[in-house]
Formats: sequence, C-alpha cells, structure tokens
Amino acid sequence: MSGQGRTFFYSSLSPIPSSLIIIMSKRLVIALGGNALGKTPVDLVEEGYDVVIGHGNGPQVGMVNLAFEYSANNGGGTPAMPFPECGAMTQGYIGYHLQQAVERELARRGINKPCAAVVTQVVVDPADSAFQNPTKPVGMFYSKEDADRIVAETGYTFIEDAGRGYRRVVPSPIPVKIVELPIVEQLVGLHSVVITVGGGGIPVMEKGPGDYEGVAAVIDKDRASAKLALDLNADMLVILTAVEKVSINFNKPNQKDLDRMTIAEARQYIAEGHFAPGSMLPKVESCISFVENTTGGTALITSLEKAREALKGNTGTILVKE
Amino acid sequence: MSGQGRTFFYSSLSPIPSSLIIIMSKRLVIALGGNALGKTPVDLVEEGYDVVIGHGNGPQVGMVNLAFEYSANNGGGTPAMPFPECGAMTQGYIGYHLQQAVERELARRGINKPCAAVVTQVVVDPADSAFQNPTKPVGMFYSKEDADRIVAETGYTFIEDAGRGYRRVVPSPIPVKIVELPIVEQLVGLHSVVITVGGGGIPVMEKGPGDYEGVAAVIDKDRASAKLALDLNADMLVILTAVEKVSINFNKPNQKDLDRMTIAEARQYIAEGHFAPGSMLPKVESCISFVENTTGGTALITSLEKAREALKGNTGTILVKE
Repeated sequence: MSGQGRTFFYSSLSPIPSSLIIIMSKRLVIALGGNALGKTPVDLVEEGYDVVIGHGNGPQVGMVNLAFEYSANNGGGTPAMPFPECGAMTQGYIGYHLQQAVERELARRGINKPCAAVVTQVVVDPADSAFQNPTKPVGMFYSKEDADRIVAETGYTFIEDAGRGYRRVVPSPIPVKIVELPIVEQLVGLHSVVITVGGGGIPVMEKGPGDYEGVAAVIDKDRASAKLALDLNADMLVILTAVEKVSINFNKPNQKDLDRMTIAEARQYIAEGHFAPGSMLPKVESCISFVENTTGGTALITSLEKAREALKGNTGTILVKE
Repeated sequence: MSGQGRTFFYSSLSPIPSSLIIIMSKRLVIALGGNALGKTPVDLVEEGYDVVIGHGNGPQVGMVNLAFEYSANNGGGTPAMPFPECGAMTQGYIGYHLQQAVERELARRGINKPCAAVVTQVVVDPADSAFQNPTKPVGMFYSKEDADRIVAETGYTFIEDAGRGYRRVVPSPIPVKIVELPIVEQLVGLHSVVITVGGGGIPVMEKGPGDYEGVAAVIDKDRASAKLALDLNADMLVILTAVEKVSINFNKPNQKDLDRMTIAEARQYIAEGHFAPGSMLPKVESCISFVENTTGGTALITSLEKAREALKGNTGTILVKE
C-alpha cells in the first residue's frame, strides 16, 4: 500500500525548488535547489518571513517530455504531449512533493500555516527575440532524417547536440506577466506559504484580455522568481544554488568570494565575463532586475544549507542597489 | 510558435471538470464533465455564487500512467512513475486547461475575479476496506507471466480484464480529509474561483501530524467534491454529468426523470438498484453524504449545459434532506 517505489528512481529527479521570495510581514521569494526541501523555507517562516517558493523543473520536464515522446513514437498508443502541458504536469508533480515536504516541516515545528502549490501561467511576448533564436534543448535525440521529417511536419527547430544526434530546441523568453499573481497575493496576504512559477511558469501568450495560449518555451526559473518578487513587492529575493557565495575568478587561483555587490559592480563583473551563462549569470541578472526596480528590496544568493545564516547577514552574497 | 498541436489529440482527453461547489456568498461546489469548460462555472459566478471546481482525471491519469509505464518497460530510459505522482501531474495538466478556460470566460464577461488550480492531497484511511479489495484498473495490459513477475516484485494486485490480459488494480477508498482545505478556504473567502481535489485528490495516508505519504489509489471525484462541499460549509453541491436529470428505471419503457428526491427516497432507489455502480450510484451517494451532514445544504445533479437553468429551479434533480 505504501512504498510506491518512490525511492528507487528519484536520485536524479528529486524536486529542485530554487527560489524563495521573502515577503517581510516580511516578504521573501526563494529559488531552491537540492534535497532539504522543506527545511529551508520553514527556517525562514520561523524567522518571521512570509515565504513564496519558486522552483526549477529541468530534469522533470525533460523526463515527462521524453516519456510521452518515446511512448508516442514507439507504439505505446499514448499521444505526444505539447511542451506547455508537460510543464503544467511538472508543476503538479513537483508542487505535490514540495508542499508535502513543507507541510511536514511546519507540523514538526508546530507552526500552523497552510501551504500549497498554485498552477501558474507566465505570459511571454511573441515579439521576444528569443523566439527567433531557440536555444533550450528538450526531448529526445533523433537521426538527421527523422529530425528533418519532424521539422517539415511541425515547424519545430532542431539542432545537432554534441554529436549525439538532433534535438528540438525551444526559446527561453523573458517573463512579462504572472497570470495567477492575484491568487498568490491573496494567499501571501493571509501568510500562507505558496509554491508558484514552477519551472519558470507555464509559458503562454496573451491573445486577448484574459485569453492565454500555451507556447513551447522555457522561462528561466530565476527570472520568473525575480519578476514575482517585484510584483509582490517582496523585501528580498533569495536565490538558492550549489554555492554559498557568488565568486569572481571562479575556480581560478585568484577566486574571490563576494559578501556584497552593488548593481554597478555586478554589471561590471558580468561585462568581465565572471559568471557562466546558464549558471550564475541568469541568477545575478535576475537579482539585478529585482533590486534595480524595487524600492529597498535586496537580493541574496547562497546555498540551500546556508540560507538561514545568510539571512542573518553571516554568509551568502547580497546584492544591493548602491 | 502557437498551435502546439493541441487539437489533434485532445478529442478523448479534454479536461473533464465534474463538480461545482456552490458557496453562497453563496457557496457552490461543481463536479464537471464535458467541453464547455469555462462557461458553466462562470455562469454560476455571474449568478452571484462563489464557485469551487472539482474534476475527474480518469482518461488523463490513465494516459500519464501508460506513457510512463510503456516508456520505462520498452527502452525509453525514463523511470516508472508512482500512481500518486501521476495523479499530481494530472492536477497540473487539467488545472492549467481549466483555469485557462475559466479565466478566458471571466475576462470575456468583464468579471474581475482570479482563478487558479491548487495542488490538493486527500487523506485516506489505511484501514479502509477498499485496500483489501482493489477494484480500479490502471495502466497497461500484461501477459499472465509478466503480471505474475510484477506481482512478485512489487506486491501489486492484478486482475484479468475482459480477456484482454492482466491489469493492475488499485483501491478506491473514501476521502477522509482534504489536506489543503485551509488554502481553498482562504481563496474562497476572498471570492476567487478555485479548482481543487482534481481526480478526487492525490491520495495520501497520514503517517503522523502533517506527515503525508502518497498511496496508489483512486478517490472517487464525486465523493471528494462532496467532502469538500461539506468542509467548506457550501450551500450546494452541483454534480455535472451527461444527463439533465436523474432517472429511475433508466433506459426502460417506464423511465421516470426525477425533479426532486429526499434522502430517504434516494436510499430506497439505491436499494432497488436504480443507479448504476461506477456511474450514477456514486453521484447520488455523494449527494446524500453532503446533504445528510450539512444544515440546509442541497445537492443538484444535472448536465453541464443545463446547470444555470437548474440552479434557477427549472430543471435538474435536486436532493433535499426531507
């Protein structure tokens, strides 16, 4: 009855929440990664913050997309699944695991606060230049022949991926509007813990007022969390990652870990190429976009394990306006 | 960019919301089925009700489960997916479609109300007798040899299904507690439209306070909506189905469509075998369980298309205490 085999395959697929949005009753948006799923958000709840949780879905959306693609292409009799729908599935899947972890930890500490994941769409702009240059690989590897056929049938874009075959790529546009923001605001206003913008949100285009349609794209999770933090007027955006602090000259003899950056300094480090695209760069850029546009809000990048310490000012890298 | 191929495969898989819970600012829980996804809930919003939407996931959870099972068993390289996780995925998937449909219809009518789907767990009792008698078929058909091997490896229960092979069956226990009820209450209290208990809820067992674990089971969607209507102190549970009214002697020359039933009458019809198990029976039973336990609440069974008319008292079958 129990033991649905959960342990045997989750090693590489454990839910990876990746941002916390601190909302200081104090407001906080967290972007999480790692395993101590429930612990860090609840640490911050215990510190008196309202916490909103964003998370990635890279491994999971890849898995969902692959399973459906493989079954559809190889006689399984199930349909192919559009990419936005795959993202929606991961919001349910990861949201379920995350809310379970947070609920368990809240109960363990005797904190009476509800928590739940909200299915969340994020509007992107069809004129976003990302649509002219899809870069994010998704789904299976195909032979050149199969890829050409699919391109002819669907108009998808394929690229050759590291000699392993051809793979579909989708755009990674900028988040423009969080459709379910009013729901998130209502719940945060009542001090619930909200899980939202999972995987960066389900990417949609707004065809008319209130009329949304899914689009095959991946919105960067950190950018979506930064947009949410801004819209919620959060006091802090916390991006949780593998390292305790942001570094310049990363992995070089002269590596320097940073306690604090101004926006101007961060921009200079970016110009000097200190932050890897697809890794630290979008995190720092997301922090800049939040801090630059709020009044008084700051952003923090640190590890899941050090978040509580970092919020007390003892570690992590804080980004401030000036 | 648009046209992710959505139309070519949804014919049999369109989201099937199946209950509306009327909550009379006026409170209403709706159980929906069919295609006019957004229209009916918004009709009822327009009539001044707070509306909570429950929905089934039969075709969708079967599809998700099958795609993962087929890919895992046939070289796709993706893992098998536990059944509760499949249910969580369908909450994201169907929730996305439903909230999109409701948002579109709200905007079209100029109603400024937020809507979103909440990932929702529902507690079942490990001592529920359903666990001794799993009846709900899920996933793929297997040969006797493969089924026997899987039983030996996993402890799953298989049955032979209509000569087509062996198929796993899972229990269908009674819903005991809706874990994310406080979140639903917060949103309904602020008059948002909430989509919840999708597919009857993700079935979980409560191992300790606030400590939930998924279990392979299917909770009947109408029973879950009835439980929710009760917990929300809803004024009405509306179960939407294929027929405009409940009938006795259904499909016989002496068929009689019912405008109104008391609980006592409904129980007598059940005893006389008027309602098909797996079809009208759980709907009528769910209505009884709601009406019996509320003060003043009523239940309505009608079609998606006739819901608005039925709420005005012009059609449908209403179930009253006495």
